[in-house]
Amino acid sequence: MLKQVTLNDTLAIAIGAGILGTGGGGNTYIGRIRLENALREHNKSVEIISADEVADDALVCAVGMMGAPTVSIEKLPTGNEILNGIRALEGHLRQKMDAIIIGEIGGANALGPLIAGLQCGLPVVDGDGMGRAFPELQMDTFNIGGVSADPFVLADAHGNVTIFERIGSALQAEEFGRSLTIEMGGSAALIMPVMTGKEMKANIIRNTLSLAKAIGDKVIDCRKHNIPPAESVAELCNGEVMFTGKIIDVERRTEQGFSKGKLTVSDFVDFDNQLIIDFQNENLIARVGETVLCTVPDLICIIGIEDGEPIGTESLRYGLRVAVLALPAPIELKTSEALPVLGPSAFGYHYQFNPLAGNLLDNSELMNNQTE
Amino acid sequence: MLKQVTLNDTLAIAIGAGILGTGGGGNTYIGRIRLENALREHNKSVEIISADEVADDALVCAVGMMGAPTVSIEKLPTGNEILNGIRALEGHLRQKMDAIIIGEIGGANALGPLIAGLQCGLPVVDGDGMGRAFPELQMDTFNIGGVSADPFVLADAHGNVTIFERIGSALQAEEFGRSLTIEMGGSAALIMPVMTGKEMKANIIRNTLSLAKAIGDKVIDCRKHNIPPAESVAELCNGEVMFTGKIIDVERRTEQGFSKGKLTVSDFVDFDNQLIIDFQNENLIARVGETVLCTVPDLICIIGIEDGEPIGTESLRYGLRVAVLALPAPIELKTSEALPVLGPSAFGYHYQFNPLAGNLLDNSELMNNQTE
Repeated sequence: MLKQVTLNDTLAIAIGAGILGTGGGGNTYIGRIRLENALREHNKSVEIISADEVADDALVCAVGMMGAPTVSIEKLPTGNEILNGIRALEGHLRQKMDAIIIGEIGGANALGPLIAGLQCGLPVVDGDGMGRAFPELQMDTFNIGGVSADPFVLADAHGNVTIFERIGSALQAEEFGRSLTIEMGGSAALIMPVMTGKEMKANIIRNTLSLAKAIGDKVIDCRKHNIPPAESVAELCNGEVMFTGKIIDVERRTEQGFSKGKLTVSDFVDFDNQLIIDFQNENLIARVGETVLCTVPDLICIIGIEDGEPIGTESLRYGLRVAVLALPAPIELKTSEALPVLGPSAFGYHYQFNPLAGNLLDNSELMNNQTE
Repeated sequence: MLKQVTLNDTLAIAIGAGILGTGGGGNTYIGRIRLENALREHNKSVEIISADEVADDALVCAVGMMGAPTVSIEKLPTGNEILNGIRALEGHLRQKMDAIIIGEIGGANALGPLIAGLQCGLPVVDGDGMGRAFPELQMDTFNIGGVSADPFVLADAHGNVTIFERIGSALQAEEFGRSLTIEMGGSAALIMPVMTGKEMKANIIRNTLSLAKAIGDKVIDCRKHNIPPAESVAELCNGEVMFTGKIIDVERRTEQGFSKGKLTVSDFVDFDNQLIIDFQNENLIARVGETVLCTVPDLICIIGIEDGEPIGTESLRYGLRVAVLALPAPIELKTSEALPVLGPSAFGYHYQFNPLAGNLLDNSELMNNQTE
């Protein structure tokens, strides 16, 4: 498993997190550049610890950016948003944090917490609350496991910091937080949830940072050998290559603080064979005609067919030649408690969730590789 | 001047505050019932002190409800919103409040702070930051005098409490606060600003609670003697009766968290002689044809022609027979610092502010009456 993150790891983690982002989580190119700058500035590596190294009575907080991926490439962060948020929360609670938790491993939200770890001088836990990216705050294993949503913090690029001190539910947090994020310019640092080490360990999806790194390493290796990486990545993640083709249509609008829309990928040869993907920041549903091939919480990941570069919702455009992967969700997302919160019905779809075989992190190759 | 508020005072204060509300500040009938219930429940009067009785190093906070008047009659408060907000702020600051300040003397916002005084066991200062009601947070003498907008608190009927810990400006507070108030259902308790006794004394408009009481007493006296009260109220406040007639048209919509619209009052005899009033929660501009008769910050107050009952924006309807008063603003609102914040241009109008003669609180009868 990862013990640290250095400049040698940033590209792989960015690629892997971008793929796990299933379209969302923020642009990883910008996130990677920011992480590399922070590593150079602080002149040390990010300390990575396993969840089980955290004491039961430790105070930890998950961090990330809230907002639309389309905003993430237009409105760059100042870089202090998450730090400001953590400091405000520590001041409010009169207690220091002991470790940083990655809120969602997908997209740039895997990278921001590493920068926060450097800024705060704190270790970052290998794991997250989603095993992928999701658009809404309540869609994580911490909420599903009953961790309180309050207090949580939003901090923007102008130094504004808001503490939601009491909040009825994570769903309420999503509604209030989304509204304020829009006022903050469509993107804001989110510190949520704040919890004990014990609560974190009971709910976190372990080793997802190591998984992101392993996926990225696989892509980089394929690039070196001029092999299209889709099959290798799918195999590593227990999934499959669902479709390959060319993006022929993108409907995308930034509304209510989300990037929402629909994407059409056409087969290279049979133009009438088209995969349609609905997205809300993240890819939600993939179908061919009336046949649903994959739905949340399973992962629908779009990558460049030659280079395996993850293509976020903000970067979708006509003409891109892509492979679409279908990866099984982590087992934690497929419980009877989790599915109403983050399955198709949570997004207003009437589709049943028919899980892909297997689970995202059940790969012996991956686990063996990582126990080095 | 007022030293306490008892059940004997509530009707007069509600009437006076309703008139000073210039349409906004929340429905005073509901506010009065709530205050009377609180007085009975706590079985004591509200202690009223003058601003100058507060020590320089005291901690005080202005309180009120944020939202549209149209919401104030549909979504009743639970009654603990302001208390919850004050307690959260005290917890955040680790310091107790020493006195309650009325944020705006207009409408139910004159009455809520009195309830908060009972609930917290704190005195309420005779005065406020507006001398009337205004729709937006930055439109008060505390902001104009340079009192910091942060931290401020919003609390809703469901127990949700948000602390805006750092905020760039009062205008930013208005934007963030309005957005969250809408999410909170269009109405929320506002604790803002938090300040020292010294800051409060340097900026508060003094004796406006006593003024509200005196206006209400005047109306009640006229009712007893079957005299239409418009002239008497105008005289007490150094103003004039601008128009009398029947409401013949109301355009009103609740949008962006405000009650916005336009009102037409027709002369009883000459139907073509019509007064048009634009409002945003409060009445902003009164004109006959192209002739502007009165603009913010001077007060445009609509009352029932027979009974002097204040008619809030939420209660405007076809057929009401009304007197429209034009009362001069308090002198504090007419400075070169204040007018850009709360004059016609602050609402997007190109009209010049041509002040009415005199000032709201410069009335020897009022001041003599009150020094009992």
